[in-house]
Amino acid sequence: MPTITLIGAGNVASHIGPALAAAGYAFKAVVSRSVSSAQVLAEKLSTTAIVNEPSVSLPSADIYLYCVSDDALPQLARHIAANHPEAVHIHTSGSTPADVFKPFVQRYGVLYPMQTFTKGAPLNFRDIPCFVEGSDPATADVIMQMACRVSDRVTPLGFEARRDLHLAAVWACNFVNHCYHLAADIVSRHPELSFAMLLPLIDETARKVHSLSPRQAQTGPAVRYDSRIINMQRDRLTSTPLTRDIYDMMSRSIHAHTVTEQNQPQTPPQAPSSQSHD
Amino acid sequence: MPTITLIGAGNVASHIGPALAAAGYAFKAVVSRSVSSAQVLAEKLSTTAIVNEPSVSLPSADIYLYCVSDDALPQLARHIAANHPEAVHIHTSGSTPADVFKPFVQRYGVLYPMQTFTKGAPLNFRDIPCFVEGSDPATADVIMQMACRVSDRVTPLGFEARRDLHLAAVWACNFVNHCYHLAADIVSRHPELSFAMLLPLIDETARKVHSLSPRQAQTGPAVRYDSRIINMQRDRLTSTPLTRDIYDMMSRSIHAHTVTEQNQPQTPPQAPSSQSHD
Repeated sequence: MPTITLIGAGNVASHIGPALAAAGYAFKAVVSRSVSSAQVLAEKLSTTAIVNEPSVSLPSADIYLYCVSDDALPQLARHIAANHPEAVHIHTSGSTPADVFKPFVQRYGVLYPMQTFTKGAPLNFRDIPCFVEGSDPATADVIMQMACRVSDRVTPLGFEARRDLHLAAVWACNFVNHCYHLAADIVSRHPELSFAMLLPLIDETARKVHSLSPRQAQTGPAVRYDSRIINMQRDRLTSTPLTRDIYDMMSRSIHAHTVTEQNQPQTPPQAPSSQSHD
Repeated sequence: MPTITLIGAGNVASHIGPALAAAGYAFKAVVSRSVSSAQVLAEKLSTTAIVNEPSVSLPSADIYLYCVSDDALPQLARHIAANHPEAVHIHTSGSTPADVFKPFVQRYGVLYPMQTFTKGAPLNFRDIPCFVEGSDPATADVIMQMACRVSDRVTPLGFEARRDLHLAAVWACNFVNHCYHLAADIVSRHPELSFAMLLPLIDETARKVHSLSPRQAQTGPAVRYDSRIINMQRDRLTSTPLTRDIYDMMSRSIHAHTVTEQNQPQTPPQAPSSQSHD
């Protein structure tokens, strides 16, 4: 089994590290800007914590696995990959090309686990779809083996499709979660309401798209563009103009998708007035 | 047990009708604009289907339960309630005041089941949060009993809080589902991708907010406003300007919520340029 040096000790590292350790991989080090995060994760992986500073030299390993933010990747690739040109360098990002490593090393690639990772929110890694790309067939094979040891849902995928998949994930996860957040803001206005009241609705909304398309599953006032309800609801958002603007555009977009996909002539609804019809 | 005439045979009626029948309520009729929908539901409820036309007189019942769209309610209230002033008239809408019935009858109210209902998507009605309001304590009691016979999660709630709850539900359900739809549009660009690949992410995103607040659960490029990724992603949406505009505003809103809630000075990010940094 190849040895791994793990770069990063954040949300992704703290999930993929233990999954790889459980699959039998040995770690040479956990490298992070944060001493405390590195120490916590290194202890779980029975290895050494190293604070990443330019002066520090890292132990050699067969694989360097980068679980860091996209904006940190180019500099780390330059700093670390250039000093370990013999190893395989793998990042875990949806939106950075594999060839961020190309100027520095021969063998590199991507293992993109498409999931929302939060420290302390346990996950079964075997259910996480993982998307793999390698600089050459042999390297792709190393990464594919690694992914298949931790996940049952591994797919080879090039950059063009991967970055669109990441964009779709931003909609299906980050923007969805933000809709939950804005819903929570609204219920917090009333002491007799709680966010927990929304959970059966949230669960059912997610469950429905397992058997219906999102178009088939859609309900609510925007489908038929019910102006009275839409105007009343947007009037409840006047104190938060950005939220109100998102409300308007989501309502128009839902209606446009409904109309277009019924093959009817698309008549975009008028921008809602600020008058209340309540 | 009071008898019920059910007005409507759509998504809500086809779920609440059978739940009430299973709880022992007898139905006098199912009334709908659509013959076929009325017949299908009336058969399930062992009652008569009636097509709603101004000339038709409805059988008398103790309760008239309106499961119709908000824009249809005022006219139906005038038409039906005025002819049955002795009965209790109940609608199921989140955003219409109970007193839509006030000009016509003494006893009226609301039973708002907060869920996304699609015909053929089975639900356990007992888990559905129901919110109840009555014109007077005795009527509220009748509606409360009815709700408690079909659901384990019944709460009395006035109009002001109910309409905000409905607005929150639009965010937590309709807008969330639309985010799924836009994600599906994006993955459909690539034959090697499928919407099913997003389901583990969709499920985990919903699951996380059972134990974390949406703020704690948030991940992704907008949290730290990673301009390189955000600009690259919005460039992938140039052919769908409305979707791109929603992308921009959601990203700014996520960042603003992150910054504000960390009690740091709020510096709204610049509007993203259309330049690609890919």
